[in-house]
Amino acid sequence: MFEKEYDVIVVGGGHAGAEAAAAAANMGSRTLLVTMNLQTIGQMSCNPAMGGIAKGQIVREIDALGGYSGIVTDKSVIQFKMLNKSKGPAMWSPRAQNDRMRFAEEWRLALESTPNVDFYQEMVSGLLVKGQKVVGVRTSLGLDIRAKAIVLTNGTFLNGLIHIGEKQFGGGRAGEKAATGITEQLTDFGFVSGRMKTGTPPRVDGRSLDYTKMIPQPGDAKPEKFSYLATKILTEQRDCHMTHTSALVHDLLREGFDRSPMFNGRIKSIGPRYCPSIEDKIHRFADKDAHQIFVEPEGWHTVEVYVNGFSTSLPEDVQYKALKSVVGFENVKFFRPGYAIEYDYFPPTQLKHSLETKLVDNLFFAGQINGTTGYEEAASQGLMAGINAHLKITEQEPFILKRDEAYIGVLIDDLITKGTEEPYRMFTSRAEYRTLLRQDNADLRLTPRSYKLGLASRERLERMEEKERRSKDFVSFFRNTSFSPEDINPILEELESSPVKQSDKMFKVFSRPKVTMEHMKRLAPVADYIVEHALDNEVLEQAEIQVKYSGYIAKEKNNADKLLRLENIKIPEGFDYRKLKSLSYEAREKLEAIRPVTISQASRISGVSPSDVSVLLVFLGR
Amino acid sequence: MFEKEYDVIVVGGGHAGAEAAAAAANMGSRTLLVTMNLQTIGQMSCNPAMGGIAKGQIVREIDALGGYSGIVTDKSVIQFKMLNKSKGPAMWSPRAQNDRMRFAEEWRLALESTPNVDFYQEMVSGLLVKGQKVVGVRTSLGLDIRAKAIVLTNGTFLNGLIHIGEKQFGGGRAGEKAATGITEQLTDFGFVSGRMKTGTPPRVDGRSLDYTKMIPQPGDAKPEKFSYLATKILTEQRDCHMTHTSALVHDLLREGFDRSPMFNGRIKSIGPRYCPSIEDKIHRFADKDAHQIFVEPEGWHTVEVYVNGFSTSLPEDVQYKALKSVVGFENVKFFRPGYAIEYDYFPPTQLKHSLETKLVDNLFFAGQINGTTGYEEAASQGLMAGINAHLKITEQEPFILKRDEAYIGVLIDDLITKGTEEPYRMFTSRAEYRTLLRQDNADLRLTPRSYKLGLASRERLERMEEKERRSKDFVSFFRNTSFSPEDINPILEELESSPVKQSDKMFKVFSRPKVTMEHMKRLAPVADYIVEHALDNEVLEQAEIQVKYSGYIAKEKNNADKLLRLENIKIPEGFDYRKLKSLSYEAREKLEAIRPVTISQASRISGVSPSDVSVLLVFLGR
Repeated sequence: MFEKEYDVIVVGGGHAGAEAAAAAANMGSRTLLVTMNLQTIGQMSCNPAMGGIAKGQIVREIDALGGYSGIVTDKSVIQFKMLNKSKGPAMWSPRAQNDRMRFAEEWRLALESTPNVDFYQEMVSGLLVKGQKVVGVRTSLGLDIRAKAIVLTNGTFLNGLIHIGEKQFGGGRAGEKAATGITEQLTDFGFVSGRMKTGTPPRVDGRSLDYTKMIPQPGDAKPEKFSYLATKILTEQRDCHMTHTSALVHDLLREGFDRSPMFNGRIKSIGPRYCPSIEDKIHRFADKDAHQIFVEPEGWHTVEVYVNGFSTSLPEDVQYKALKSVVGFENVKFFRPGYAIEYDYFPPTQLKHSLETKLVDNLFFAGQINGTTGYEEAASQGLMAGINAHLKITEQEPFILKRDEAYIGVLIDDLITKGTEEPYRMFTSRAEYRTLLRQDNADLRLTPRSYKLGLASRERLERMEEKERRSKDFVSFFRNTSFSPEDINPILEELESSPVKQSDKMFKVFSRPKVTMEHMKRLAPVADYIVEHALDNEVLEQAEIQVKYSGYIAKEKNNADKLLRLENIKIPEGFDYRKLKSLSYEAREKLEAIRPVTISQASRISGVSPSDVSVLLVFLGR
Repeated sequence: MFEKEYDVIVVGGGHAGAEAAAAAANMGSRTLLVTMNLQTIGQMSCNPAMGGIAKGQIVREIDALGGYSGIVTDKSVIQFKMLNKSKGPAMWSPRAQNDRMRFAEEWRLALESTPNVDFYQEMVSGLLVKGQKVVGVRTSLGLDIRAKAIVLTNGTFLNGLIHIGEKQFGGGRAGEKAATGITEQLTDFGFVSGRMKTGTPPRVDGRSLDYTKMIPQPGDAKPEKFSYLATKILTEQRDCHMTHTSALVHDLLREGFDRSPMFNGRIKSIGPRYCPSIEDKIHRFADKDAHQIFVEPEGWHTVEVYVNGFSTSLPEDVQYKALKSVVGFENVKFFRPGYAIEYDYFPPTQLKHSLETKLVDNLFFAGQINGTTGYEEAASQGLMAGINAHLKITEQEPFILKRDEAYIGVLIDDLITKGTEEPYRMFTSRAEYRTLLRQDNADLRLTPRSYKLGLASRERLERMEEKERRSKDFVSFFRNTSFSPEDINPILEELESSPVKQSDKMFKVFSRPKVTMEHMKRLAPVADYIVEHALDNEVLEQAEIQVKYSGYIAKEKNNADKLLRLENIKIPEGFDYRKLKSLSYEAREKLEAIRPVTISQASRISGVSPSDVSVLLVFLGR
């Protein structure tokens, strides 16, 4: 039926699958996206939002690399916020609320306009494997489709089991079928699989809520956006609202605990620690009388509302009674109850840095199948798996991002080195070099590399180079231009910063903590420069960060470079750890299992101590 | 959980369910729409088009009554055609191609903006019945929701079984779960159920087709629209394309006949006669070497394409090989194969004219559950069931449309009087009075009645009254205004119609077959009248039809009135046919089963002969 062999088949059309298909195709691979339902490509299965702390940085990195998540987010955004703007720029994190239906539609249209992507609707129930190499997929109707590489992005669908109270039923999402067959086959090949759990809150009718009792959560007065390309900026936005639970709500929820699959032993697998269900929260933090609830609109026009913070798998009647006691929800009408879902994942230590599996050649995993949670985490893995699938079949070196290059690098290195036994979510604290990995410079960090790969477009590179050049020039201007005390002192006085006695370079006074670009703009030479060079906000921001945080950035860069030396000490493939008797037993076992590629990676494996690292260094002749 | 009892619960969110929920709610019933998936409300499960011959008239009737199908169609239309424009106005049939995703979104938004409609996502697996009366539904999670009336619109979901070649699997649509439980329970109550079959063609990638080899099928140069309200008219349209099968294609298809569920006995139920599968067509019309295929875009932007005329449940590989041999499809890429689906229906003779079941009070059926096929047929039944559910629980008389009032009246009377053993589709030939039941006058026929019911809005009525008044006045103008021979004769000469010798009323010359409004407009008094009264196209068209077809219309009206006398002879409820020994055995049996309400309805039952009717008339004292 598919006479031509595909280069890459991507199984699944969620955030991971969509990015994987787009990346492989844009690099030149003839790519087939197989999904159980073509109408649910790009579904936001949980909350209608993209980005947030550390996650927003990931979306910017995906965009810088030439992925589509940022563009699709910009095209369907209904509210934008730059979180943590009061903190240093390493913490600035863009977040968008999205129109759920628009988001999916924009993803579908983006993929359709990618010439090398074909589509097919069916359940993949098995892989075709020849020797140690995957050569295609088999659908549930028995159709064999051949390809040189396969990317699995099955999300929560693999043997998905939905729980609401004491009821359980199979399903990949509420109202959708589960996928079967793949886990069983992979286990036969020797893969270890596990179960994870995630959950989602009720969806309710916005017309039944009393927003006057809640606190509006508007978007930023000056909204920004995700893509470095010329996507449009929001002109109108929709508010979210905040309310909270109470002791009464908690009591009502507790009444259902004996029927809760979380507490009666039905759900055995572990859920996302930082996205706990409401029953988990009141159980773990028994002393807290209230938890915040964010009421998020599901789109521009729909009345459907997402009750963020109220994820639950308690029985429907308990969900309803408790939610009715939340301020503003007195007359709430449910669209559908919250639920929990258990699904199969494969501990990601079974993967290489390229996201190719160690056991089966040319087979790549991305997204929740690797034990992660979150759209952004999934999308970034999809992108990397798509890139590396293409590189593998064209016999090129894998594309691996280091921990000082991208959150995506941190994410994948964490997964494959440390593994995860609970749904893995990105945080800024997971990155050693977060001052380097900012949302404002993802293009500067990643676009040149991606362009070299053949993924990021010429346009994208040129926009990046222009921004880089202009901001560098502007920083040089601050380094080379002097101010006069009579110009700057009124501003410093205003800021209660000590006045200067003599003229000096602008860079110096601009470096003071309280002085911002807004203040510097009040100096005539600065204002003139901006007008003369027609600098946009992105360049102003970039220059400001380069000036004000130059010290931190340089220091972190230095640390990263130091570690890079360890990173450069490769451990030979197939290295026999058993002969190093001076390694601890645990270290030997873990090193055997994970097979790190470098000393640096070895040092990050839990159970490998600094003395184990020394043993390795000595043996490898350093 | 649902503390308040609903007035009406509608099960299913397709064309029937959506109209039912909207109608009941707009009449004042607190209504709950329960669907297995809130994201698939208003799905076009098969082709992305509304209307067509007889079906277009039904959509206009739905709109005239205050339903939403016309509005939703207008909001998502990508191409409009008035079919049969070369024939008399009784045959004019509006047809739209639609953007599939937009259509569903507009339906969802329309329902959301209906204040009395609540939503709930879950599978209904049973009814709550008390004595002979339905009092609610039970969901698959065990939730009981109470209501005074229930409308079932389960489409193809009841025990849905999908067939592709030799493969079978449960499902309500490709990629969606089947619904279970309801048939079994209804059968226990004494309902008779049957199985029907329908099918759908492959969806393919428009980028893989060669349109230069096909014949473009553009929309009308001056597109019209469906709703009598002020919806917008299309300014830009998308073309469809026509191609055809060939002897080679037929041979390739025949190669798969031994694996066809249609021919190997797997599918036992009957499919829609006038929407046959391609294998059916080449089997039944073995002498035909080619069948037309219409290539319909699925929306404004998507590359997905619907292959109208190629519905099939042959094995995927056979579908593919054969379609590749169709002109323009040489490089076709499949999005998904065609398939057949079998599902449960309930022979509609088990219903009253109100669509309430005879066995269980306050339980209504609408759509495919009644053995019909087609979006329009489903939507109109949903509308009528929604109206009648509201009327029933507010203790009002049912709203029944007669056969001379609406295609909807013909549809429902056919269903409940004659039943159906194959999917029932509307045709103009099913209507005795199709000159009365035109697409241009559905508002004049139905809006006043619906307004009286409390469904059609004041705005709708006023627009209708304005149109009626203006077109009547314009017709009077033609009756009362004379022409001069020197003005009209050049036009008549052009038309090769015999010239007139003396002045006469315009009505007379306008009645001539070849003379149209366009010609009459060339007379100064007509042109002046149009400008002076600012008449729009709708009024011009209405007046033209009233003038040119007045004879036919009057004649048909007369026939209808005659039959109305039979319609007015009611048969008492519970009438005992067994005591009328002179009835034929077959007539007695059918009359007992169907229990017609009037002599007229009795006369339409197949197996009831004119002499049986006479027996009844004599007995009832006429």
